[in-house]
Amino acid sequence: MGRSSDAREKILTAARSLVELRGYSALGVAEICKAAGVPKGSFYYFFESKESLALAVIDEHWAAELSDWTRILGGDAEPLQRLRQLFEETAAEQRAGQQSCGTVSGCMFGNLTLEMSNQTEVIRERLQQIFDAQVDLVEAVIAEARERGEATVADTREAARSVVAQLEGQVLFAKLYNDTGLLDALWANCVALLGVRTGTPTAVAP
Amino acid sequence: MGRSSDAREKILTAARSLVELRGYSALGVAEICKAAGVPKGSFYYFFESKESLALAVIDEHWAAELSDWTRILGGDAEPLQRLRQLFEETAAEQRAGQQSCGTVSGCMFGNLTLEMSNQTEVIRERLQQIFDAQVDLVEAVIAEARERGEATVADTREAARSVVAQLEGQVLFAKLYNDTGLLDALWANCVALLGVRTGTPTAVAP
Repeated sequence: MGRSSDAREKILTAARSLVELRGYSALGVAEICKAAGVPKGSFYYFFESKESLALAVIDEHWAAELSDWTRILGGDAEPLQRLRQLFEETAAEQRAGQQSCGTVSGCMFGNLTLEMSNQTEVIRERLQQIFDAQVDLVEAVIAEARERGEATVADTREAARSVVAQLEGQVLFAKLYNDTGLLDALWANCVALLGVRTGTPTAVAP
Repeated sequence: MGRSSDAREKILTAARSLVELRGYSALGVAEICKAAGVPKGSFYYFFESKESLALAVIDEHWAAELSDWTRILGGDAEPLQRLRQLFEETAAEQRAGQQSCGTVSGCMFGNLTLEMSNQTEVIRERLQQIFDAQVDLVEAVIAEARERGEATVADTREAARSVVAQLEGQVLFAKLYNDTGLLDALWANCVALLGVRTGTPTAVAP
């Protein structure tokens, strides 16, 4: 049983890096098993299909990211400072990925949305839940900032979605140009999108 | 020769809808030829490889989009009004696509960026040129608006990139949720990102 759990973990790890490098469609079960160093029989012992493996990869990645987002956005810092920290940690993570594999891999959820949301309904639903959760977390912080009189935006839900859309769009550019410097614009854009009041300390550039 | 050109056009049309539906990686040459109704020999008469077909699909799509963007952004309306028109026509096009094939297909260039920019250097370069050109076109309009005192943004290049990033991010959401209503936020976000002066007539919601 010990070895079996090991094999599942190896398959997940291999699938995750292959998905990050080349997307989902280009992936074959044989290739995943080869990269994981497990026999093909093991794959179907743990996963019903390539689709159920994709869901497991998505879930594992989201569990880790959710824990980061919750730590950052639920922290003790002032609300806008927490949003800023989210952008900084996102940029740091993309830089780390670039250093380890040579190219900016972008956001797994954005990548999979554009690659396959129109192909697999169950994956589309999962990705919708993930982005809904991201928007929820960001919205709570924006609502706090507004209560403190630091943000003037009227619709906190729409503002939160726009902040996440901006994040996805800039990460797309960082991936395309293989340049994490493009993520430096995130904070200033967030300040603009939220109508942050002039004079709010966290709104000032470092 | 007449029939040959016909076959090239049929292959391009079939490839374009298959790429929009399912992306590039999942596509096979045999399938494209079947959808196009041409023998497989024809494919290699016109295209060296699947990659060169992808470049042709990208180029054809960009030629059409560039002509739209140039018409709209180079038009006679006031500069901010032209940007607004760009968002409205983008939304209308996504709605038309949704009506014809049931789902929002999103932006072909964004889709291909997230699916394959890390796989094929020649396609990455082409997509970079396209997004550079989009940012150029938007930047020229922002610079005009700033000269007229309607936009207060400091760095027109960065502002233009942020507007295009916002567009890509919201189109990503429109695709994921199959809901073009999400594109309604584009104009208000653009007003915020450009620091449009209060009182500028085009800044008012309809």
